[in-house]
Amino acid sequence: MDRLWTNARLATMAGDGLGVVEDGAIGAQDGRIAYVGPHSGAPDAAEAIDCGGRWITPGLIDCHTHLVHAGDRAGEWAMRLEGASYEDIARAGGGILSTMRATRAADEAELVATALPRLDALLAEGVTTVEIKSGYGLTVADELKMLRAARSLAEVRDVRVSPTLLGAHAVPPEYAGDADGYVDLVCREMIPAAVGLADAVDGFCEGIGFTPEQTERVLAVAVTHGFRVKLHAEQLSALHGSSLAARHGALSADHLEHADESDVRAMAEAGTVAVLLPGAFYFMRETQRPPVELFRAHGVPMAIATDCNPGTSPTTSLLLMLNMAATLFRLTATEALRGVTANAARALGLGGEIGTLEAGKACDLAVWDISDPAELAYRVGFNPLHMRVKDGRCC
Amino acid sequence: MDRLWTNARLATMAGDGLGVVEDGAIGAQDGRIAYVGPHSGAPDAAEAIDCGGRWITPGLIDCHTHLVHAGDRAGEWAMRLEGASYEDIARAGGGILSTMRATRAADEAELVATALPRLDALLAEGVTTVEIKSGYGLTVADELKMLRAARSLAEVRDVRVSPTLLGAHAVPPEYAGDADGYVDLVCREMIPAAVGLADAVDGFCEGIGFTPEQTERVLAVAVTHGFRVKLHAEQLSALHGSSLAARHGALSADHLEHADESDVRAMAEAGTVAVLLPGAFYFMRETQRPPVELFRAHGVPMAIATDCNPGTSPTTSLLLMLNMAATLFRLTATEALRGVTANAARALGLGGEIGTLEAGKACDLAVWDISDPAELAYRVGFNPLHMRVKDGRCC
Ligand SMILES: [Zn+2]
Ligand SMILES: [Zn+2]
Repeated sequence: MDRLWTNARLATMAGDGLGVVEDGAIGAQDGRIAYVGPHSGAPDAAEAIDCGGRWITPGLIDCHTHLVHAGDRAGEWAMRLEGASYEDIARAGGGILSTMRATRAADEAELVATALPRLDALLAEGVTTVEIKSGYGLTVADELKMLRAARSLAEVRDVRVSPTLLGAHAVPPEYAGDADGYVDLVCREMIPAAVGLADAVDGFCEGIGFTPEQTERVLAVAVTHGFRVKLHAEQLSALHGSSLAARHGALSADHLEHADESDVRAMAEAGTVAVLLPGAFYFMRETQRPPVELFRAHGVPMAIATDCNPGTSPTTSLLLMLNMAATLFRLTATEALRGVTANAARALGLGGEIGTLEAGKACDLAVWDISDPAELAYRVGFNPLHMRVKDGRCC
Repeated sequence: MDRLWTNARLATMAGDGLGVVEDGAIGAQDGRIAYVGPHSGAPDAAEAIDCGGRWITPGLIDCHTHLVHAGDRAGEWAMRLEGASYEDIARAGGGILSTMRATRAADEAELVATALPRLDALLAEGVTTVEIKSGYGLTVADELKMLRAARSLAEVRDVRVSPTLLGAHAVPPEYAGDADGYVDLVCREMIPAAVGLADAVDGFCEGIGFTPEQTERVLAVAVTHGFRVKLHAEQLSALHGSSLAARHGALSADHLEHADESDVRAMAEAGTVAVLLPGAFYFMRETQRPPVELFRAHGVPMAIATDCNPGTSPTTSLLLMLNMAATLFRLTATEALRGVTANAARALGLGGEIGTLEAGKACDLAVWDISDPAELAYRVGFNPLHMRVKDGRCC
């Protein structure tokens, strides 16, 4: 083997819980996990790394982000705290359209450059895979530019990027009053053009977004082009977008504060993961919690992500999301950790590749200066990462 | 002058707002601010540092922490999420007494060693002054040991430490059922012994802590020994501890969720700062917000701190507290920033020494990679610190 991490406690996340191996070791060969188990049974390796009794988990997975975007929304947020209304802010050029304008004005290199500090913040906390959505371009060319920028990030940093086409994020001003016309564009041009650039197709099904009928067209066309689908659903309104997503075999439905038992049952039958976004819940001061007890009762896997975006969740700390999932949504510490490893991998259709420490998977690791895995969710704004490993290499 | 920071935008925090100086410069001489103003008027210096257009604020001040402690409470927190009751946890040896036992068992060097990662997390976000309370020893010797450990931290890191005696934090098991007897110990032995070691004396006035009568004895004795006082008040119950603190000329009353207008008026008259602790509010899932509108109406300065402690606020991110103060308590971005600079300095009785960028004060600076000071409060779990300066030296 190329490399062996020894003197470690492992939270493999295999099975249903933490999958703990005390006095464990992990071996890598050609970037893959070649051995995981007790140190006593580990084969020899060209290089051995003594972890000093630290914990190793799978590299963390942030399975829902809008990391690539240009512009800045701090100013309008500060205005709102000073008492400005949404109308005031719209008049001052704020809101999602300000992000769209800035993103359209930026070229691919600028999108990469502005995304890098956010990506670096994630990587500093042990993230090795990040999903990144388009959705601020809202023209074919600008959406593809966002997807290419997302892919480029994986060339300048040691990270796996899973890009998602979110053309159906908002109706751009060119189609004001003609959402159906914009959906035509998404279905006829954007989705076909994203083949090979995106790993999945997503949409925003809300009272303030696209209707279930419009969303259904997008998902159906995406499936015919070979995409797996995901959906922003039940964040602000109860339109049963999550049931709709499940009918199209969605990898995940995301947000879900307003999902009901019929939605949860549909997701359970389809194997759709519930991606919870406590950072958006916190930042928007929402009060309706996602139905965690129903997800548990029906066996729907729960993932957790940052939703990193400038309007409703300007966060770049996945560890903080573990704490918020526990504090605000009452997930257990183990559920929270599974939400950014095994279940986040499933939400990306990468359950066979990453998310647990098992032989044959990519050797993506996070080594932590902690004495109990619960500490990762317990602490608020503290980063105990000791070492990050991507494809078997320390980075 | 020794050193000049140029090409910077300054948020001096002098006056009532941000005190912005565009195209500014700051000069240091013998660790003090010798010049602050437009670059064009700056004198020469032995060394010039080009800030590349970045923002400079005063070094941040965390004016309420329990940073020094031993032991770990992640396990009991995880148990509670799994459904364990407070009784289960007490039976398993958890709660504040577990921190007390671990702190008593640790020597001064161990207390320093375990506090350092927490302190380093604060410093990495631009903190240059930190208040640290005792209160987990609860014997004369163990309280003094905590205060010495707090002071020692300033010898191993470039930081100003303001230690506070919090002997009246909880009744230790030796005095179970005899809170008055323990208050005797605090008044007769602990407070006199802390002269020269602590900068202030604090107490915990709550239904689950000490009564107003017991608290009053502690504050009165502290004042006779020359201490300024502070008080944990109105966090969980409305006992008018903040009015009591104000009567003793307290530097600050802290938490204050249940303070009423009579408390606020008393604080205003005494010049007592309201120290808000949104991390504890968040972590404990409280719903009663401190009366921010009353503080504004009566001109009570508001400060913000981490309350870093293992039981109710295990956070080490002061920047995150800015966001929580805005998101949860609706402070403006400017109020939040004043809360960790000018007003935090006043809460420590150090308003003449730190907290604003003004000639004659200590040259403690934070240089930020931001385009708007509001970003410091807007982002969630992101650290844009570029450089930290303590007493005129980059560190
Ligand atoms: Zn989203
Ligand atoms: Zn406290």
